[in-house]
Amino acid sequence: MSKKIRIGIDVGGTNIEACAFYDGVCGTDDVRYVHRAYPKGAHTDELSQVLADCVHELLQSYMCGIADVCNIGVAMPGALDIMHGRVIHAYNLGLDDAPVCDALKSLLGMGDIHLVNDADAATLGELKMGALCGVRSGCMITLGTGVGAGIIINGELYRGGQMRGTELGHMTLDMHGKRCTCGNYGCIETLCSATYLACAAKEVFHDDDMTAKKVTDLARSGEKRAVAVFDRYTDNLSSAIATYMTLLDPERVVLGGGVSLAGEFLFEPVRKKTEKKCFFSPICDIVPAMLGDKAGAIGAAFV
Amino acid sequence: MSKKIRIGIDVGGTNIEACAFYDGVCGTDDVRYVHRAYPKGAHTDELSQVLADCVHELLQSYMCGIADVCNIGVAMPGALDIMHGRVIHAYNLGLDDAPVCDALKSLLGMGDIHLVNDADAATLGELKMGALCGVRSGCMITLGTGVGAGIIINGELYRGGQMRGTELGHMTLDMHGKRCTCGNYGCIETLCSATYLACAAKEVFHDDDMTAKKVTDLARSGEKRAVAVFDRYTDNLSSAIATYMTLLDPERVVLGGGVSLAGEFLFEPVRKKTEKKCFFSPICDIVPAMLGDKAGAIGAAFV
Repeated sequence: MSKKIRIGIDVGGTNIEACAFYDGVCGTDDVRYVHRAYPKGAHTDELSQVLADCVHELLQSYMCGIADVCNIGVAMPGALDIMHGRVIHAYNLGLDDAPVCDALKSLLGMGDIHLVNDADAATLGELKMGALCGVRSGCMITLGTGVGAGIIINGELYRGGQMRGTELGHMTLDMHGKRCTCGNYGCIETLCSATYLACAAKEVFHDDDMTAKKVTDLARSGEKRAVAVFDRYTDNLSSAIATYMTLLDPERVVLGGGVSLAGEFLFEPVRKKTEKKCFFSPICDIVPAMLGDKAGAIGAAFV
Repeated sequence: MSKKIRIGIDVGGTNIEACAFYDGVCGTDDVRYVHRAYPKGAHTDELSQVLADCVHELLQSYMCGIADVCNIGVAMPGALDIMHGRVIHAYNLGLDDAPVCDALKSLLGMGDIHLVNDADAATLGELKMGALCGVRSGCMITLGTGVGAGIIINGELYRGGQMRGTELGHMTLDMHGKRCTCGNYGCIETLCSATYLACAAKEVFHDDDMTAKKVTDLARSGEKRAVAVFDRYTDNLSSAIATYMTLLDPERVVLGGGVSLAGEFLFEPVRKKTEKKCFFSPICDIVPAMLGDKAGAIGAAFV
């Protein structure tokens, strides 16, 4: 009896990451990857063809066929209809009302294909093979252009009480704050994303070339204005983490995404400030993600 | 074979409510109650004697003995060590380091006595016999002197990932807001409690006799300043409910406590404003609690 293969695909606005591994594998050493550039301007059929090519290439490396696959998961950003495997709209991808799962099923001749929110997939990846391994309650927060997050409750990815997901990035942190893309005001995303950090730096330095990375490096070097910007950022992020911890009392919080690459320069002040703000003391661990940009693809394979 | 009896006791700073019913009973019609005034200034032993008296009186009404009891739950406010049945501190009761469960076990000669947070007990009561019946994911928010809340996930009371509880009232709503009793700033409790409503009214009316009830009644009668205060309150409360909904996508939100008695005059604007702020649309039901001041005792019996 041959072992079955799990396949996960993470579809982003720039890259498509796909991976495969045998069902039952626990570490990332035995995971194989392929990737493609995102076919900009593509419609459902063209995109699905690219995804099918990824699946075929991975299967060839195992000298296996589609009959050997137990599961394919596709992680995507935007508003999704998980139940029907359909993208409702994904601005970053230029997709609207796209029945991606159905199209892929036709191309591959296989039924078990599931759609998953990209932040949820990354969280599931970290739960199964990364920084959330063995955790029964926790979350993974991705600090990128926006703030994505998935949460783990009772050892499983929480899909929302009505299966519409969880949106930690759109919880309110400052009800009198700036308007968010979602229409509400002062969401975590408006205060904790890399975009916030870059905008705050542009304002302070009157320099449109400022980025989250640049201001972080300047702060690390001790530049006073950059230190102040970064300090405000860790104020915001610690408030966001504390408010989540105060509701759910988790065992571990994992931070990923571009801003998290600042390492202990970020984590140390965030831990200290969160400890002061959280209702429960001592607070749980706040640690870096382990799977980098592979988390989404690996997690999708487990959906 | 005789049926077993469940007993629940809700210990508040003013009153102690105790109830009993046969295990398996689903409605409140067959619940029996006794109550006592809280013995102000009492220490653990005196308080436990009052609780034991409640248990004996209830059992007498059934012509039963302690051997017929399957479970006793005691709901209390403050910081609790649930695992060891001990009050760490409860300012409202003037209790510190009080091993209530052990004392009650000695007096009654019975082992199965459990301590539970009062907001959690009220939520469990509404889940088993009230407004949360049949709900798999939801919460009950009590709008009183403070803001207490319990949450239901996967059909069960959520006790916190580390069993330290959940504190929706201390989630951040306005990170630049006023200092809360917990030490953090702009907590939901500082913006959504009856205390907030009374303080806001006192300020606006320059009248120290203002209460949450008075300003609500004035607002209902159309008094302009009161309308403005109440409008700000429903702004705050809708932001609080929306931030919880955005994280957990629940099926139902139940509001209890003094402020909730305003009925549709409160619920209607809160529903409309929450719909505008929540990431998920349409929002779930927001409805009044059903068990009033009996929710805690009934819920405690199910712990």
